[in-house]
Amino acid sequence: MLNYGIVLFPSKPFQDTANGLRRRYDAHYANIPPHITLKESFSISNEELPEMIHVLRDIARQCPPIDIHVYKVDTFFPQSTTIFYKLKENKQLSWLNEKLYQEPFPTDRAHSVFIPHITIAQKLQQAEHDDIVGQLKMIDVSHQETIDRIQLLYQLDNESWTVYETFLLQGQST
Amino acid sequence: MLNYGIVLFPSKPFQDTANGLRRRYDAHYANIPPHITLKESFSISNEELPEMIHVLRDIARQCPPIDIHVYKVDTFFPQSTTIFYKLKENKQLSWLNEKLYQEPFPTDRAHSVFIPHITIAQKLQQAEHDDIVGQLKMIDVSHQETIDRIQLLYQLDNESWTVYETFLLQGQST
Repeated sequence: MLNYGIVLFPSKPFQDTANGLRRRYDAHYANIPPHITLKESFSISNEELPEMIHVLRDIARQCPPIDIHVYKVDTFFPQSTTIFYKLKENKQLSWLNEKLYQEPFPTDRAHSVFIPHITIAQKLQQAEHDDIVGQLKMIDVSHQETIDRIQLLYQLDNESWTVYETFLLQGQST
Repeated sequence: MLNYGIVLFPSKPFQDTANGLRRRYDAHYANIPPHITLKESFSISNEELPEMIHVLRDIARQCPPIDIHVYKVDTFFPQSTTIFYKLKENKQLSWLNEKLYQEPFPTDRAHSVFIPHITIAQKLQQAEHDDIVGQLKMIDVSHQETIDRIQLLYQLDNESWTVYETFLLQGQST
């Protein structure tokens, strides 16, 4: 059994911007580049992998490239001290997320609602969270770009993630 | 212009093994998972990327999955204090490396000879290198596995690497 996750990476310049904050505030800074999680960590066996890959290819073929729109900094507090770039709701992201929580993928959700976001701070002490959240919320983070691929990653024992495979989004925009 | 690199990732268990040493000895531990470099960092523009991708797909289609054989720990000293898992010479690795230093790829080589390896220590002071190299060389690292994909990565401003695309090796074994 390995832990897998499915994410989108934003463009290099936007990853650099996010890392400027993550370096200081994100406990997972060294584990994975800045990303939008489509499906949170799930565990499957080597035997189950080929079927997943097959379905992922199919999903990617149907989905057009995604226009993401980052529009503000927000926090998940009091659920957690995670602070993030919030993305505008997006039909394609929601569709992908839906698909990735249907069979043959594990269907259990850690969070009942899908809130597309890029984490910039996590595992903060509450005092630190309260110190910085106001200032971070004031940052103008308006940013739009198009992402044309999704990434399947697996987790190593040191908790970092390695990309297993890229799937190009090849659907026709409507 | 972005910096790109082309690598192979070994299997998750072997990455874990390598990371056990890299954690202590590799200054680039947090920048990239354990890997075999096929083409060292090169710089190209966004305009040049599509042609590279096209050629990479073509190369991957021709190349069968690669049986790698790690057989010992060695050092590049005195050229550098880099210590690595050495791989047995391998026709496919050499062929891939050749192809990736031909047009349309940049053809200049930082190292005249291609020595396939997985780095486990680098940027050591010479005294530290001399302290640990004997002990590391005594480790039995005999390991074989098959790798069926290559990865194109780009470098962020913090010097870490993000995977841009995976290319499956789809040639027929002879």
